[in-house]
Order: sequence, then C-alpha cells, then structure tokens
Amino acid sequence: MNTDKLPTRSENYSEWYNQLIQRAELADYAPVRGCMVVRPYGWALWENIQGALDRRFKETGHSNAAFPLFIPMSFLEKEKEHVEGFSPELAVVTIGGGEKLEEPLVVRPTSETIIGYMYSKWIKSYRDLPVLINQWGNVVRWEMRTRLFLRTLEFYWQEGHTAHATAEEAVEETVRMLNVYTDFAVNEAAVPVIPGRKSEAEKFAGASESYTIEAMMGDTRALQAGTSHFLGQNFAKAFDIQFLDPSNQLQYCWTTSWGLSTRFIGAIIMTHGDDQGLVMPPRLAPIQVVIVPIFRNDAEQAKVMPVAEAVNRQLAQFRVKLDARGEVTPGFKFNDWEMRGVPLRVEIGPKDVDNGVVTIARRHLPGREGKSTLPLEGDLAASIQAVLDEIQAAMLEKARKFRDEHIFEPKDYTELTEIVQNGWAYAYWCGSAECETKVKDDTKATTRCIPLDQADDQPGECIVCGQPARKKVYFARSY
Amino acid sequence: MNTDKLPTRSENYSEWYNQLIQRAELADYAPVRGCMVVRPYGWALWENIQGALDRRFKETGHSNAAFPLFIPMSFLEKEKEHVEGFSPELAVVTIGGGEKLEEPLVVRPTSETIIGYMYSKWIKSYRDLPVLINQWGNVVRWEMRTRLFLRTLEFYWQEGHTAHATAEEAVEETVRMLNVYTDFAVNEAAVPVIPGRKSEAEKFAGASESYTIEAMMGDTRALQAGTSHFLGQNFAKAFDIQFLDPSNQLQYCWTTSWGLSTRFIGAIIMTHGDDQGLVMPPRLAPIQVVIVPIFRNDAEQAKVMPVAEAVNRQLAQFRVKLDARGEVTPGFKFNDWEMRGVPLRVEIGPKDVDNGVVTIARRHLPGREGKSTLPLEGDLAASIQAVLDEIQAAMLEKARKFRDEHIFEPKDYTELTEIVQNGWAYAYWCGSAECETKVKDDTKATTRCIPLDQADDQPGECIVCGQPARKKVYFARSY
Repeated sequence: MNTDKLPTRSENYSEWYNQLIQRAELADYAPVRGCMVVRPYGWALWENIQGALDRRFKETGHSNAAFPLFIPMSFLEKEKEHVEGFSPELAVVTIGGGEKLEEPLVVRPTSETIIGYMYSKWIKSYRDLPVLINQWGNVVRWEMRTRLFLRTLEFYWQEGHTAHATAEEAVEETVRMLNVYTDFAVNEAAVPVIPGRKSEAEKFAGASESYTIEAMMGDTRALQAGTSHFLGQNFAKAFDIQFLDPSNQLQYCWTTSWGLSTRFIGAIIMTHGDDQGLVMPPRLAPIQVVIVPIFRNDAEQAKVMPVAEAVNRQLAQFRVKLDARGEVTPGFKFNDWEMRGVPLRVEIGPKDVDNGVVTIARRHLPGREGKSTLPLEGDLAASIQAVLDEIQAAMLEKARKFRDEHIFEPKDYTELTEIVQNGWAYAYWCGSAECETKVKDDTKATTRCIPLDQADDQPGECIVCGQPARKKVYFARSY
Repeated sequence: MNTDKLPTRSENYSEWYNQLIQRAELADYAPVRGCMVVRPYGWALWENIQGALDRRFKETGHSNAAFPLFIPMSFLEKEKEHVEGFSPELAVVTIGGGEKLEEPLVVRPTSETIIGYMYSKWIKSYRDLPVLINQWGNVVRWEMRTRLFLRTLEFYWQEGHTAHATAEEAVEETVRMLNVYTDFAVNEAAVPVIPGRKSEAEKFAGASESYTIEAMMGDTRALQAGTSHFLGQNFAKAFDIQFLDPSNQLQYCWTTSWGLSTRFIGAIIMTHGDDQGLVMPPRLAPIQVVIVPIFRNDAEQAKVMPVAEAVNRQLAQFRVKLDARGEVTPGFKFNDWEMRGVPLRVEIGPKDVDNGVVTIARRHLPGREGKSTLPLEGDLAASIQAVLDEIQAAMLEKARKFRDEHIFEPKDYTELTEIVQNGWAYAYWCGSAECETKVKDDTKATTRCIPLDQADDQPGECIVCGQPARKKVYFARSY
C-alpha cells in the first residue's frame, strides 16, 4: 500500500482527485486508453446509487429493459443534429466473425436511435402510450481528454426513454425525471444540485430542450450531474414512431430521454472529499460503519474482541465492517478507513468496555469535534441510525453552505469575469449565443443552467450586452 | 395483439419457442443480425435471476466490479487455446473518434484476459488472496446461427473471476460455484439440472477443467445452463499473475471463472412452458399473482372492484398485478396471463364476493384440477404464500419426473443411438475422443457431463468401444 501522503486539495486539486480514486480503490486505469476499471469499492457505491434511483424510477411507473450495444451507422444519420453531435465520438465495429461487415456498427454512445426504431414497431395505438422504459448499461464515447469517472471512453449509466401522446405529457415527464434526479442528489448523495434548463448551445444533440442538475465541486467548478431531455417529435419523425389517436388519426409521438452516469461518483468525491480522503454520504456509503477494536496484548484482546463481535452483530442492519486485521495498527486502520470515507467509525478499547460505551468518530468532522461515546446498553442500532442521519444532514448543509458562499451576483461584466475564477456568477442573460460565446472566450466559463423557479417576466439587463433580459443564468467553469 | 393460436410443442417445438417469446413480450429481434431486445417482462425475469444469484455470490464472499468492454487484440493471443477458441467469434473495433486504431480492440467475448491483466497489477502477496470478483455485464460472440436467449451475438451474463494461492483452493471454488448454480437452478427456477464435469472436447477454451449444469428441455434436448472453470495456472502464466508466498517465494496464482447468462431464460421457457404458453416458477416470476375481477354490469362492478382492490392491497408483499382493463373480457385476460405464465390467478366475481372467497387457478395445472377457492377472511397472504410454495415444489417435481422418464441406460451402442433421438443416454465411456466423436458423427449427440457423484473405481465397459471405463457420462443432443 502506498503510504505517501495524498496531495492536499489546495496544492493540486486534480492530483488529489486522481490519486484518491486509486488509493481508495474506487477505480483504476484500464490497459485501453481512456477506459477505467471500477473496483469493488467503487462498484458497491454505484450499486447503491443504482438502488436509490431504480426505486424512484419504478415508483414513477418505469420498467427496465435492454437494447443492443450495436447500432447500424445509418440509424444515427436519421436525426441530423444527433449525428453531428455524436459522429466525432464513435467507436466503430467493422469486422465480425472474421469478415468485413457490409454496414459498420456503432458501439452505442446513447440509444435514442435504436430505441426509437423499436418503439416504432411496438407502438400502434394511443392505448400503448405512454411507454416508460429505462435501461442500465454501458455506452462508449471516444473522448480525447479523459478523467476517471468524469469522462471515460466507456462509462456506465442509466438512460430512460419514454414516448407520449402529447407534448404536454412529454414535458411533464422530462421535468418529473429532472425532479427525481434532484431528489436523489440532495437526499441520497447530499449533493445540493441546482436544477435548470440548458441553453441552446449546451443542449443534447437532437433535443428540443435539455434540463440538467448542476453541482458545485470543491474547487468551485461546476459538474453536470444528470440530464433530462424533451426530444419533441425529432426522433419520432426520424424513426416513424406513430400512433392512432382516439379519433383514428395517425400522430407522431413526443419523446423524452434522461440519464445519470458513473460521473456522479466524481460529484460525490469532489463535493464531500477533504485532504484526508473520501467522505461518503451515509445513505450511499458502501460501508456505513467500521468497527475498530483496540488492544495491546492478549488480555486486552480477550476483553475487547467479544464486545466488538457482539456490536458487529447488533449493527447487522447497517453496511457494517469489523476490521479485525492483526497485521496493522489501529492508527493505520483509522487512516485507511478515513481515506475510504466511511462515515462512522466505532472504536472499542479496554477502557470503553470498562465504561460500558463505544467511542464513535464522525468522518465529516475530523478531530475531537466529531468524537463522542454511545452506551453499549440499550438500543445501540437506534443510536447509530440517529448519528448517521445527523451526518447525512450535516454533510448536505456543509455542501450547501460552501456552494452558497461561492455564488455571487455580479454588478457588471468585469465583476463576472472575476467571479468565475473562483465561483459561480448568477446574472441576467439576454439568451443570445453571442453573449454566451463572449463569456466563454473571455473566461472559459459557460452557461450552466437557467433555474426553473424564476418568475417569467422579471425584468433585467443582460450582464454581457446590457440588452433586456428575462432570465438569470449561472455562469461557471465546468468539468 | 396477435390472436392466432400458438403452434403446439408437438407440431413445431422451435416455432412454439420463437413465437412464444415474442407474444409473451419477453424479447424481440433487434435490427442488427443476431441481436435481441430484452423487453420489460423478460428483463424483470432476468432481474429476479440476478437477485437470486447475486445474493448467493455475496454470501460466498464475492464482490462485484466492472472491467472494460474493449480488450486489446494482443491480450487474447497470450493464451493459445483461448485465442483459438474465440478468434472466429470476435467483433472488432477498428475505428475510434474518426481515426483508424493502431491496435484493433476486441469487444469482449469473455474477460479472463483483461481481468488477468488487472489481477497481475493488484496481487502482490499471499495476503491479497483470494481475490473473489464477479461482473454483471454484456459480452459479444459473433455466432452464425442465433436463437433468442439461447444464442445471440450480444448476451447478458455474470462472469466470476477468482485468484487463489493453491490449486486445491481454486478447485474448491470452482466446485463451490457449480453448487451455487445447481442450488439456484433447482430451488429458484425449479429446473432440475445435473451438475458434472465436461469432457476435454467440450471444455472452455483455456480451462484445465470445466464443470457444467445440464438441463433437459421439453423436447428432451440438453441445454448447458451454467459453467464453472478451473483455469489452472494457464491465465496466471499468460498474464503474470504472481504473488509472494509466506516464505517470500514468487508463485503463480491458480484462477477460476464461472458464468451464467440470459440463456438461462431459455431453460426456464423450455423446462416449464406448455401449449398455452409460459409457466413461470413463482420465486422468479415477474408477476407472481394476477387478480382478475369479473363482472357484467355496473352493479356487479360496484360489488367486485372494491374487493379486488382490497385483495390487491392485502397481497402487496407479492409481485402482484390487478388487471383492471376495461376494454377486454375476463376470458381474454385469462389467456393473456396464461401465455405470460403468471403462476397464480385470483378471480373475483359477484358469486365469490357473496361466498366470501376468491377463486384461484394454478398455471401449471390447467383446467379444473388447478382451481380452488380461498376464504377472504383471515390471512389471505399466508394462504397465497402456501399455494405459491406448493406450485414451486410441484413444478420442480414435474420437471424432474419428465427428465427421469427420458433418461435411459443403453445396453449396447445400437440402443444408445436410438435413445438419443428422444432422450438422454447414461452410459460408461472410456474417455477417448474417438468414441465421443463417433457418437457425435452417428447421432449428433455429444457428451453433456460426467456427474461428480460417481464412485471412482466402479468397473464398466465403454458403450462405444467396449474397453474398460471408470465413469459414466450423459450423451444427448443439445442446444
């Protein structure tokens, strides 16, 4: 094990991120450029994310299914903006079973096209609508600059694809799933995202409108953490997804798609992590509680271990681990589990046993502040649950505070250019591509999202050109 | 919806299978040759299979992880038998991001090579062993003749990959996972598989020994339903997976791999299905109980529906569906859910309400025999659970009886050639490739497996050549 100190975030944020992922064994680099191996600890986190989202998808009426990995190249070409957006990023299979293929197959970068094709076969009547399907899987986008979790050639995600009889229903679905993502991010991951609409320049290739949840990372850069798209009739027309309405008229469907990926693991790392390592939100943590027995000799071991084992059994309802390793010291174990971000450590030493208590340490409050004791007698599991809930709430509050302290409303354009060096600027924007491009060229900051909860007719002036503007937008540098 | 009658199994078994899958909406053909779309009903079955297996994997100490889809071509070439076995079946990516790749990438047909490469990076000392990792994912094998679920270009599976310090431990793991598959097949899917060892000719490309669970389908053909491989040091040597033993000597690991795929859905269809359609084992059924309210007018509807809804709530612990469709008749619903194989139907009509009962119909016993009533008063959920348990046991028993009635011990070679036309032949085999090939050439039957529970020194004579033989083997035509 690498015992060098992790770089601090202020020394080198990027190196802190890369090294932390490998040391905490979340992921590793694959022998194929830009690909990653998600190791068991990272995959366990992803499984918990999947569980929390999948429950919400099913509660909102969606079913899972699986569509092919390979898409005929000609399918992508049916939607003009879609193919323009994705063609630079494709991995292409040209040989199958030793023979050159007549038509090359694209490894799916996203599945609107092939799912659209199947929907056109399945949907005949308004009675078949809505179709509400989600897929958990892998996709490939040939990215040039890659980062573990944030941007890899292959990544894991879910992609929801729905078809509806009316535009209103499809918009409603798009916003419903945006709200599902927000609820998941805030209440499961303790990541206080801001939901909103994307600008024309930032929307998904082929969408009529894109919505996003935007998160602020520990270096104040923004991360697009999930997106939901209203696709209008664009894909329905390209793939002939039609239905007979109640008056027997043939109509095109209105479709949506929405996705959240392993990128979200990057959001968790960079929202909560500190110079000691990861800090996992209790609800998603692969290990919620680690028990570290402390003893210096056989007599102490004989006193402590049975209590540690009893506590381990008492806490079986949690994702709990008893670290009984003999070859390393308690101090080593503390550092190890702090690096991995286990939210709660339970220490049991001879004095604790004498006092009828366990000592607990909260990962998000390093040092004395996060330490206290809990009585062994009584309902220890209930006490631990209460502490985990308290930690979950405190982590959200801490992240929200950090975010709000780094959002500013600039009084003029010069101030905007300064703010986005170390924060987000929230300002009126006229909506023109020119103003958006100017900010990007001057500062590298892009428009992140236009929050939905603005009154429609609020008056204002564009922070860039001074023309009348009705909506405020967040400008920030992003991942 | 297609209202033509399904072909019967005796008319055309193959068409019965193909049409049933599509009509029951388990899967559909994709627009790419040999690929399938697993529809929500089929995927829900797969999710239940995943849940039942994953629980067993975790109980036996395994963790999930994710390795890349793409494997450098050169990796496959490192293990001679492996590349010979898989190279005719590869899909190859030659273009990425618009450029020709320097080294082509293979879409994984299985992951021993890339996982072996990573294990060589991760494993340093005996303290790192065993490594017990499983992956749920998709793989691609460029098959020429495809069948939904049984053999598709892309399929879904889990592949376990483990590394151990000794051959004994690795063999123990191989057999442990074979037993896990057997337990799953018998106790969750009610598929009475026969576990055993594969012959040299039938083993996995690169394995030292392969083990299999073999199931008998409704047409008596055998289906290999899951495999577990002892890989010896073959991949450890090809990928340099070494560890320092306690005396500080560098040693090669011993590795295993084991997999079960969406092919198993084919095993469920063909073990239990009948001329009316699917019959799902209760433990894995996407819908365990369907409630069909029966009424002919508004008054009856007002009487029946509140009871149906109350029963629906009472049965919330099951995967239950209340079929409240107004546009189709109860008779249509009966046929529809029979086709989809829902194990238990609960009918509620005005007379049932008057009598304070529900009428139940067991899918595996069509007609009167499977019908009875249960009182509405009392613990209906407990009664339903008991019926589901009874159905699960009866389905296993029925399948076991069918299997045993179609296994024969031939007295001579001529009898063997007759038996395998409509059953399995269980006979002594000397172990030579010549005898195995002769049977295959004469009858199309292959050796399916050598059961493990044979006394080692039982004497006998090879059914083919008459030479001394120590083991019996099953010969059968297979999928």
